[in-house]
Amino acid sequence: IAEGAVVLSPGRVLRPQDLGVLSGLGIATVFAIRKARVAVVVTGDELLPPGSTPRIHRFADMNSPMLAALIARDGGIPRVVGPLPDDREILRTALIAAADCSDIVLVSGGSSTGPEDHAPALVAELGELPVHGVALRPASPSGLGFIGAIPILLLPGNPVSCLCAYDFFARRAIRRLGGGHPGWPYRVESRPLARKLSSAVGRVDYARVRLVNDRVEPLSIGGASILTSTTRADGFVIVPAGLEGYAAGANVQIYMYDIA
Amino acid sequence: IAEGAVVLSPGRVLRPQDLGVLSGLGIATVFAIRKARVAVVVTGDELLPPGSTPRIHRFADMNSPMLAALIARDGGIPRVVGPLPDDREILRTALIAAADCSDIVLVSGGSSTGPEDHAPALVAELGELPVHGVALRPASPSGLGFIGAIPILLLPGNPVSCLCAYDFFARRAIRRLGGGHPGWPYRVESRPLARKLSSAVGRVDYARVRLVNDRVEPLSIGGASILTSTTRADGFVIVPAGLEGYAAGANVQIYMYDIA
Repeated sequence: IAEGAVVLSPGRVLRPQDLGVLSGLGIATVFAIRKARVAVVVTGDELLPPGSTPRIHRFADMNSPMLAALIARDGGIPRVVGPLPDDREILRTALIAAADCSDIVLVSGGSSTGPEDHAPALVAELGELPVHGVALRPASPSGLGFIGAIPILLLPGNPVSCLCAYDFFARRAIRRLGGGHPGWPYRVESRPLARKLSSAVGRVDYARVRLVNDRVEPLSIGGASILTSTTRADGFVIVPAGLEGYAAGANVQIYMYDIA
Repeated sequence: IAEGAVVLSPGRVLRPQDLGVLSGLGIATVFAIRKARVAVVVTGDELLPPGSTPRIHRFADMNSPMLAALIARDGGIPRVVGPLPDDREILRTALIAAADCSDIVLVSGGSSTGPEDHAPALVAELGELPVHGVALRPASPSGLGFIGAIPILLLPGNPVSCLCAYDFFARRAIRRLGGGHPGWPYRVESRPLARKLSSAVGRVDYARVRLVNDRVEPLSIGGASILTSTTRADGFVIVPAGLEGYAAGANVQIYMYDIA
């Protein structure tokens, strides 16, 4: 390597072989963008810790194990807080602490407009909440705010909504914070629809689908609490806000859930 | 979920949402295929620890930082031993210990047929070495053996050869051991060659290439010690053993190094 030559340019996502070249040049340490530290604040009176046996009116938190795996997939370092009760003061303290020691905070639950949904008002009070409510089914109660310079993403408590909101909003932020490309991690395949896929004009729809005999079967476009719709599905189709859906036989793009 | 229903089938690579469903069912622990524990035994009298300032006749190990990142990419847990001197007894002890506490062992260096190359004879003595030498440029001194049931992959010490041998052989094994799909992790793009790409009949060639104005420029098909050929490259083209290469203008498939 000629003296003065640029070996690796700023902004590069380091490849394995880049680490070899740096080592060979006698460079044991480099300044690099660190992985994003992501706090996941889980709130909900109905929630038990992950993996707990369900009881009457109470069941195990499904979102934090899912979110931790999604965050790791996107190069972030997850730290889960909760599940916390729907108590304004407890959530306030947890939000301040999370914003203080993280690069981004995800709040799972308490994000809608009911009496137990304290997160939106708290974020507005502690900082700002420019976005609350998005035209995306099934993730409409999502929100985006800031406490100081730290982004706070409000994710719905319903697990399918939570997955959808994560993948549309949090994924991009976490990958960008870690210096990565914000694109979808899923392989895209194009296949014809086995039957009509309906959607409402004016909002984007996140439709879970299966591939059956190389044709696309819509599974369920509602049912935000039925997380098995996303484990039975092979992937999802995004229906843009301007469309009433797709006719049977139309070629649609499927984002395939299985990455490996 | 109906009682008795199969929620997730054996062999499935768990998705983030699968963890959510398991949690909701009260299942806090599941039996799963663990990540492969991968020992990397580095040997070479000329090698200093990674990142060391080069001296006369000695330079820093480039392969172990590169291999550790590749192994992590493929879902394995790397553990580096060395750099060790080219001493038969030291290497023998290291190989026995590595095979004893790992799911697979990669040996970097000492894999060819020179007087300092102790690894092939040692693996044959401690177990078996059915493969030594492959018709793949620039990774011909690669080998595959076993000590007990543990696969031992001999990777050449030249860094480009090491990267090539890892990606052709070790990648598949590590991904399979961890329950994953053994395919290439790289995005494939098809583009025309800017000029002829020569290759010898009878061996597979791993040709580093750049994309310049959407055409494929071959960089260097030799130079196994010039690791920067893989940092300047955008990816590689595999020339099958039966071909003398590709003519200028031919469409070739490029495996793109940048994954993210």
